[in-house]
Amino acid sequence: MEEKIFDLAIIGFGPAAITAGIYASRYKLNSMIIGKTKGGMITTAHLMDNYPGIEDVSGIDFTDKIVKHLEKYKECKIKEDEVIGISEIDNNFFISTKDGENIKSKSLIIATGTEKRKANIKGEKEFIGKGVTYCTTCDGFLYKNKKVVVLGSGDSAFNSALYLSNIAEKVYLICRKCSPSTENKNLIEKVEENEKIEILYETEVEEIKGEKMVEKIITNKKEEIEVSGVFIEIGLIPQSVLFQNLNIEFENNFIKINKYCETSKKGVFAAGDITTGFCELKQVITAEAMGAVSATYANKYLKTK
Amino acid sequence: MEEKIFDLAIIGFGPAAITAGIYASRYKLNSMIIGKTKGGMITTAHLMDNYPGIEDVSGIDFTDKIVKHLEKYKECKIKEDEVIGISEIDNNFFISTKDGENIKSKSLIIATGTEKRKANIKGEKEFIGKGVTYCTTCDGFLYKNKKVVVLGSGDSAFNSALYLSNIAEKVYLICRKCSPSTENKNLIEKVEENEKIEILYETEVEEIKGEKMVEKIITNKKEEIEVSGVFIEIGLIPQSVLFQNLNIEFENNFIKINKYCETSKKGVFAAGDITTGFCELKQVITAEAMGAVSATYANKYLKTK
Repeated sequence: MEEKIFDLAIIGFGPAAITAGIYASRYKLNSMIIGKTKGGMITTAHLMDNYPGIEDVSGIDFTDKIVKHLEKYKECKIKEDEVIGISEIDNNFFISTKDGENIKSKSLIIATGTEKRKANIKGEKEFIGKGVTYCTTCDGFLYKNKKVVVLGSGDSAFNSALYLSNIAEKVYLICRKCSPSTENKNLIEKVEENEKIEILYETEVEEIKGEKMVEKIITNKKEEIEVSGVFIEIGLIPQSVLFQNLNIEFENNFIKINKYCETSKKGVFAAGDITTGFCELKQVITAEAMGAVSATYANKYLKTK
Repeated sequence: MEEKIFDLAIIGFGPAAITAGIYASRYKLNSMIIGKTKGGMITTAHLMDNYPGIEDVSGIDFTDKIVKHLEKYKECKIKEDEVIGISEIDNNFFISTKDGENIKSKSLIIATGTEKRKANIKGEKEFIGKGVTYCTTCDGFLYKNKKVVVLGSGDSAFNSALYLSNIAEKVYLICRKCSPSTENKNLIEKVEENEKIEILYETEVEEIKGEKMVEKIITNKKEEIEVSGVFIEIGLIPQSVLFQNLNIEFENNFIKINKYCETSKKGVFAAGDITTGFCELKQVITAEAMGAVSATYANKYLKTK
């Protein structure tokens, strides 16, 4: 019995991966998407309004739309599973998953994105799931009429504060710096105008305290602030550890690609938030563009293989 | 009275320009879009199914969606007009339009796209509007139950033939080369399987003939083929002539940009099909990604100006 070999394996399940799957299907490639979280990071977006043609959509509804679009194309198999190992022999790729599957493929698109960064504050680890969270849209509803704090100074922190202002009694937004890191003036304005949000600049959280659940935080100014929830929104870590043994080039753990989404290794492409070198603006629309580019050049690569 | 000056002028009105307008609005820039054709080239697409989240949509319906999305943001003025002149003094840009408007702006995004290439066949010019056309979706309906010919070997020619097969009695698809230029196997299969379409490879059209309207074509093999319509789909010309005096860098008349959509001149950005150097794959999704990138870095530029 001949072993099944895919033309293309797409690792990840966010907008970049899904777009790669759609394009690969249109090129009639026999492909498979393997990812643990349908939609990836975008599912945590409360409201998205910068994807042209789809106004005011939640990350979850947007994910449903693009996954449904992909599912129409039968050429791309979908596997909700976690990749735990990957190796290469003679330009073929061998992927093993948590569910015990072994998948063989002639080419690879890596689109595993990024995950939220930990703050390394005293008490943070202890209170994860007991008041400390990294996903506002997942856990926000738990804090109805309670006091919460958001840590961070970028778009995600400001968006998180806004989102929580609709739920919580009071939102503290704590920035280590003296000004926001985002250039989105629209966003800054909305936060500043919001009566429920209090921004504390040049402030750090030194400790998260409580009995069984979070009760308060202590700042570097030795202030105690009573809160039930601590939302940490301080940046992203590329999910690239798995691919270190593929001998591809990295930069600060992001995967280096050129304008064809090629990595430094033949047959290995990358797209979306995990990449650097091609498109540095991280947005759904740019991730999808890279998904389209990666599938297009994977198709060209397979033709010449 | 102080003269009105925009933060940003976006020239063009296709997906790249519209996305730039949406992003610019979210950055609270005071901007204006100036373009003669709402939607640009995409309006000529019969059916688009590779824009994730919006399935099976006509180019015109897609345009309506993204224009409606843009119109929600009041920060970006929309002007359906043709730019006829542009100049720069001290990093400010002066734009004059066919309707006699003079617009002043601190920065510029060029997103004027491409137009269809002429074939330079004997009779072509004479019969434009009398059977010779460059827009299948605009004129296809005129050829119900008639015989037509499509010239070209790329995606647009193959799509054109498919579209016309639903209308015309018979479609000849004439390629100069011995094989299609497109790598879209899905598309090639559909055309080859279509009983109404006959593909003639390694064939050229030498003359288009008729009394008042097109009646037949003569090939280089001296064959006469009776047709009422000649659809020319042989490539694109970048709409960049207007910008030659801006001292920006070109490559084969496409505007050279880097990964921030910057041209070689400060304050001038470009996005979409008119560009080269950043993203070479020309698709709606990539044009829009460039629109987002160009507005983002225009915003950064304006902050430091």
